[in-house]
Amino acid sequence: MHEHRVHVRYAETDQMGVVHHAAYVPWLEEARIAAMKDLGCSYRELEQAGIMMPVVELELQYRRPLHFDDAVAIRTTVAVLGPSRVAFSSELVGPDGQLRACGRVVVAACTTAGRPTRIPDGLLDMLGGG
Amino acid sequence: MHEHRVHVRYAETDQMGVVHHAAYVPWLEEARIAAMKDLGCSYRELEQAGIMMPVVELELQYRRPLHFDDAVAIRTTVAVLGPSRVAFSSELVGPDGQLRACGRVVVAACTTAGRPTRIPDGLLDMLGGG
Amino acid sequence: MHEHRVHVRYAETDQMGVVHHAAYVPWLEEARIAAMKDLGCSYRELEQAGIMMPVVELELQYRRPLHFDDAVAIRTTVAVLGPSRVAFSSELVGPDGQLRACGRVVVAACTTAGRPTRIPDGLLDMLGGG
Amino acid sequence: MHEHRVHVRYAETDQMGVVHHAAYVPWLEEARIAAMKDLGCSYRELEQAGIMMPVVELELQYRRPLHFDDAVAIRTTVAVLGPSRVAFSSELVGPDGQLRACGRVVVAACTTAGRPTRIPDGLLDMLGGG
Repeated sequence: MHEHRVHVRYAETDQMGVVHHAAYVPWLEEARIAAMKDLGCSYRELEQAGIMMPVVELELQYRRPLHFDDAVAIRTTVAVLGPSRVAFSSELVGPDGQLRACGRVVVAACTTAGRPTRIPDGLLDMLGGG
Repeated sequence: MHEHRVHVRYAETDQMGVVHHAAYVPWLEEARIAAMKDLGCSYRELEQAGIMMPVVELELQYRRPLHFDDAVAIRTTVAVLGPSRVAFSSELVGPDGQLRACGRVVVAACTTAGRPTRIPDGLLDMLGGG
Repeated sequence: MHEHRVHVRYAETDQMGVVHHAAYVPWLEEARIAAMKDLGCSYRELEQAGIMMPVVELELQYRRPLHFDDAVAIRTTVAVLGPSRVAFSSELVGPDGQLRACGRVVVAACTTAGRPTRIPDGLLDMLGGG
Repeated sequence: MHEHRVHVRYAETDQMGVVHHAAYVPWLEEARIAAMKDLGCSYRELEQAGIMMPVVELELQYRRPLHFDDAVAIRTTVAVLGPSRVAFSSELVGPDGQLRACGRVVVAACTTAGRPTRIPDGLLDMLGGG
């Protein structure tokens, strides 16, 4: 389990006075990339090596709102689903320790030309799927 | 079934050269609000009347990428799930007529104070749940 | 003078209850690309031909707020500043016909490698700088 | 001079392979709010006390691109322009210490009803305009 922190930007609020639901999506991405880095895998280097990991599935359940200036802890677990798919499940916890939202993202390795490809073995090992 | 069109903005692309997966979320919102308007319900007036409909669940499956300048057709169906919940299911179709993504959003009526509330009967009728 | 219309998205509001100031920036971009298209120049094709036009200067003055669901008219004029620079000046007008904001963006042609380059003569003619 | 750091999100890139120019605007906001907090002024509490500080002017010059995963230092200086206006000037510096962009934002104090108002004396003192 990897923990990443974000701090709510004013631009991420909407006129309900809470964080807009779309703003959680780049947070999940940031937390996912940080979790991969913790495991020894730089997503930047992965792309430079010609492997991209676009999102193929996204799910979010919103339990309680988040507000401007809140510190949010994003706790992410990684699960290798197959030779080209990885799932990242996240809990988003507010400054009071309460669960605010749950997210799940599946990414699928592909080449720069957009064709499905296998995740390199070394990386698969790092992600726990070896 | 309601159809809404969006035109991909340059700002919605990312360095993979395709539309970033987070950009679809405001599109679904725009399509949902347009679908409600088609049914006779102005979301702007609903909020002015003290009823908000925050998103409580979001799901997206991404099938094929979309690109800058693409015209995207978003076909949305509405289903009333209960006295305070409505689901909007959308198919996103690219300029070639091919399915690019499927989305589903559930909203839950609440007061401006954030407490759950019933959707007014008149509106529920309009949304097909009367 | 070219006119382009946008319709304010809910996601573009913030907790002040108005459109967030950052949301105007992709609108200016959309209006700029539409103005170029009106003049016969597809920005999509320009990039495919290896010429990019990143923004090098941005200015915005905000006069009166815009709100969710507003229709906004963006009136843009184009001025060629030199062989590689073009300025786009825009007025953003609200649904009541009142000026809401003024913007000015300067773009500079460069190659895909990021090196400055001349705008092709044909395009420069289209933009009024021949 | 106040320094704030941001870390480039993948979602902030565009298909040129660099950070999209609109993404700098929420960064300036985040840096501005952090600078105010350093000076003893919580923007969150300011709004709760009924004073908002919407942006009335925005300028950005882009010198060199920023990339995904870059650490960006934003160095901001504050200048009180009058009883209701404050200017924030920022330099954005890349991971190599080179200047990437300069920004300037002017905010104007107003009430929750949107009417201009004076910045409270205590806050004006904190911002260096006493």
